[in-house]
Amino acid sequence: MQTVTKKVAVILSGCGVFDGSEIHEACAALLALSRAGAEAVICAPAGNQMHVVNHLAGEPNEQATRSILEESARIARGEIQPLAKIKANEVDAVLLPGGFGAAKNLSTFAVNGDQCMVNEEVAGFLKSANKEGKPIGAMCIAPVILARVFGNDLHPRITIGNDPTTAGMINNMGAEHVDCPANEAVVDQENKFVTTPAYMTAGSIAEVFDGAAVFVDKLLAL
Amino acid sequence: MQTVTKKVAVILSGCGVFDGSEIHEACAALLALSRAGAEAVICAPAGNQMHVVNHLAGEPNEQATRSILEESARIARGEIQPLAKIKANEVDAVLLPGGFGAAKNLSTFAVNGDQCMVNEEVAGFLKSANKEGKPIGAMCIAPVILARVFGNDLHPRITIGNDPTTAGMINNMGAEHVDCPANEAVVDQENKFVTTPAYMTAGSIAEVFDGAAVFVDKLLAL
Repeated sequence: MQTVTKKVAVILSGCGVFDGSEIHEACAALLALSRAGAEAVICAPAGNQMHVVNHLAGEPNEQATRSILEESARIARGEIQPLAKIKANEVDAVLLPGGFGAAKNLSTFAVNGDQCMVNEEVAGFLKSANKEGKPIGAMCIAPVILARVFGNDLHPRITIGNDPTTAGMINNMGAEHVDCPANEAVVDQENKFVTTPAYMTAGSIAEVFDGAAVFVDKLLAL
Repeated sequence: MQTVTKKVAVILSGCGVFDGSEIHEACAALLALSRAGAEAVICAPAGNQMHVVNHLAGEPNEQATRSILEESARIARGEIQPLAKIKANEVDAVLLPGGFGAAKNLSTFAVNGDQCMVNEEVAGFLKSANKEGKPIGAMCIAPVILARVFGNDLHPRITIGNDPTTAGMINNMGAEHVDCPANEAVVDQENKFVTTPAYMTAGSIAEVFDGAAVFVDKLLAL
């Protein structure tokens, strides 16, 4: 049996749980990909973050502006590309870590709930990937992006854990929410989506890493 | 046998390999502490970073200013305290992840090499911890801080991997450098120091997490 290294596009949304990618989740995904022998193609869309949150005070800094791509580069140790440069047919799968960046920068879910819009670059890439038959994985709050982009067409089965309000909004967008614990992942075999709750339900960093390992294995198996 | 949760002060230096704490190393340390049942008391000193590096371009942004503590709070998901509020006798061990922040914000090693100074808050805390008999662990480039603070008094055995230039500077500061691979850690039993090379030699995120697990186990065993 030949071993071919799978390439997985990892779409980041900044660097920090309150205004970007959740750092532990992103690292957990990158570690699981590394352990599985897959190559992470780390990328982020162009544009600025919705805002910058002082993570010490828990409050937005109204004066500050930060680029999604430049901040995401911190998690990637500089090894990152603009999402616009990556073609969906050149990767084997797509992975979206969570954090408020998924709901503030990649979509407007944090502001508009089930009336949200998805960043055009991200929506276009995900549609191309799905059309090419590539599996797409999403962690934590990021599955709301799948609900918005694919809900009304594909009615995917996805999870964000067990929060009834968020689950209701996912159902409103045409997807079907399934409850799931932090150390598990929900697979929609037909549509090739894998989702896992991560910090939506996890009580420790260890649970996030445990769940990410299961999630990535299921993503790569599709 | 009673189980007592060990508290470990984790001193961060910002958020991002080129101007703060190396994110993967910090997460690897936090994960290893969580898996070992220890409590991470995450903290950072007051003051601004030496500078802010655009991690996409790899170049400093001369206009920007960022607080060490506020940026460190991103890795901590907001659960962080000023180092000044933590007493060395209230924790069971101290842990310093790497990243250029250790050599730019916690010390001036990146600029001054073996003539470097260590941030006064950090130096004071480490001296108190050592006096109280608390083990101190340092990853990646952070062991240069131990060399500067303790080199001439205790002549500790420490590692930053196998880089001859950095090793030479460590020896010049009165410590003894020992070569070590990324998946191992060097223990100075007498002085209660544990050091591990992490990204000074690691070729993958998986190696960093493997090394951090060994490192934390040895730190907690002291």
